[in-house]
Amino acid sequence: MRRGLILAIRMRLEIIGITGLPEVRPGDDLAALIGQAAAQQGQPIDRLVVLAVAQKVVSKAEGAVVDLRGIQPTALARSWAIQWGKDPRLIELILSQSRRIVKMDRGVLIVENRLGFVCANAGVDQSNTEGDDFATVLPQDPDASACRLHQALGCGAVLITDTFGRPWREGLVDVAIGVSGMEPLEDFRASRDRRGRPLAATIIAMADQLAAAAGLLMRKPDGCPAVLLRGVEWKAAEGSARSLIRRPEQDLFR
Amino acid sequence: MRRGLILAIRMRLEIIGITGLPEVRPGDDLAALIGQAAAQQGQPIDRLVVLAVAQKVVSKAEGAVVDLRGIQPTALARSWAIQWGKDPRLIELILSQSRRIVKMDRGVLIVENRLGFVCANAGVDQSNTEGDDFATVLPQDPDASACRLHQALGCGAVLITDTFGRPWREGLVDVAIGVSGMEPLEDFRASRDRRGRPLAATIIAMADQLAAAAGLLMRKPDGCPAVLLRGVEWKAAEGSARSLIRRPEQDLFR
Repeated sequence: MRRGLILAIRMRLEIIGITGLPEVRPGDDLAALIGQAAAQQGQPIDRLVVLAVAQKVVSKAEGAVVDLRGIQPTALARSWAIQWGKDPRLIELILSQSRRIVKMDRGVLIVENRLGFVCANAGVDQSNTEGDDFATVLPQDPDASACRLHQALGCGAVLITDTFGRPWREGLVDVAIGVSGMEPLEDFRASRDRRGRPLAATIIAMADQLAAAAGLLMRKPDGCPAVLLRGVEWKAAEGSARSLIRRPEQDLFR
Repeated sequence: MRRGLILAIRMRLEIIGITGLPEVRPGDDLAALIGQAAAQQGQPIDRLVVLAVAQKVVSKAEGAVVDLRGIQPTALARSWAIQWGKDPRLIELILSQSRRIVKMDRGVLIVENRLGFVCANAGVDQSNTEGDDFATVLPQDPDASACRLHQALGCGAVLITDTFGRPWREGLVDVAIGVSGMEPLEDFRASRDRRGRPLAATIIAMADQLAAAAGLLMRKPDGCPAVLLRGVEWKAAEGSARSLIRRPEQDLFR
């Protein structure tokens, strides 16, 4: 009976969107803003909680916002922009945030960005900025951003999330681009199935599963860039989203 | 005050793992087993709930289990199996479940399976089977499997989930391979940001985000193949996981 009770408790997760954050501006203390909004909502942030924060507000608070008027597009950026009806300054910014072009076709620009993540447009985004002359880029070091929030808020772990496409499947999903306090990959290869056979190929991208779960609440009209996840079991570690990047020598799709 | 209360309620999801399912066998009434286990756990299944069920138990209940002793491997299957230390019968089964080989390199077999999903090993799996001579394949028609559970249990929507790898990122995530009662993609392009700018590129793979969230509870040692998600807002529709498959003419990574 008691075991059943414990199991039932462990088998329940809660995902809570923190509402009421103000428009975030460069220099804002994001940890303080999230902490205050959570407190106002009666949601204490403690060591049992995983906090997921959307990249966009982290970039804004850190001033990772670029004024496109200061950008001189190269010939490559101009030619691509003209061909596909894009802003050449924006294309130039995307190229400057990239270290390898993975695919440049039909107006789509998939790159390995300066952090090593393969994604569209290197994470450069114009939504929720101050107008057509501004774009956000990814935080300088999303792991460090996660670590600062982790320490300031005293939560169990922090994920910085962004919204990525995937080959072969339609639609975007949220993934982790910054991690603090958690091993982002969980290795179940030592686990065995009910018949004692070792489970094959079961390294699970826990941080990405959590990011996707948090993403279910992040896309509300009011904006909900911070999400708490309670009831999660995770492997405590310093953690880094770099663990989620496939090493070139193991990547069959470079 | 009242608006705040409503918001707070909407901004909270609950994910509940249904424990205590028996070992599922061919011919079992999976809907009945899930309904009974949920009831025993005091978790009513109603129209407000999304039910996610792991592919493995669906395949088992539907008898999608193959006795490898009846398989005659082709030369291709034998040669690949010898080169990489695999069971040639298993390779033959994988090939028979495929309609296109996407990548066959370094012992890894990524295929477009007969349903159109691109994944490793066509979804063929030996874990939790009756021994080395048996493997499960994906359900014949996972949308139809989802639809049957949907109708039998009277829940809001049903997802059949499986665990897939991704290019460029380490670790597996859970995705939807069968959908009933929900539009698997949610289109936020009509939405506008706080400044009135239309949100770009924001078709979200809701069904995959939900599958990933459910996956957080599916990998417990006791096995937890059925998960309830409460508090989710979704667009009701007949639904099909085929919507999640990128059309060849739009796929830059074929």
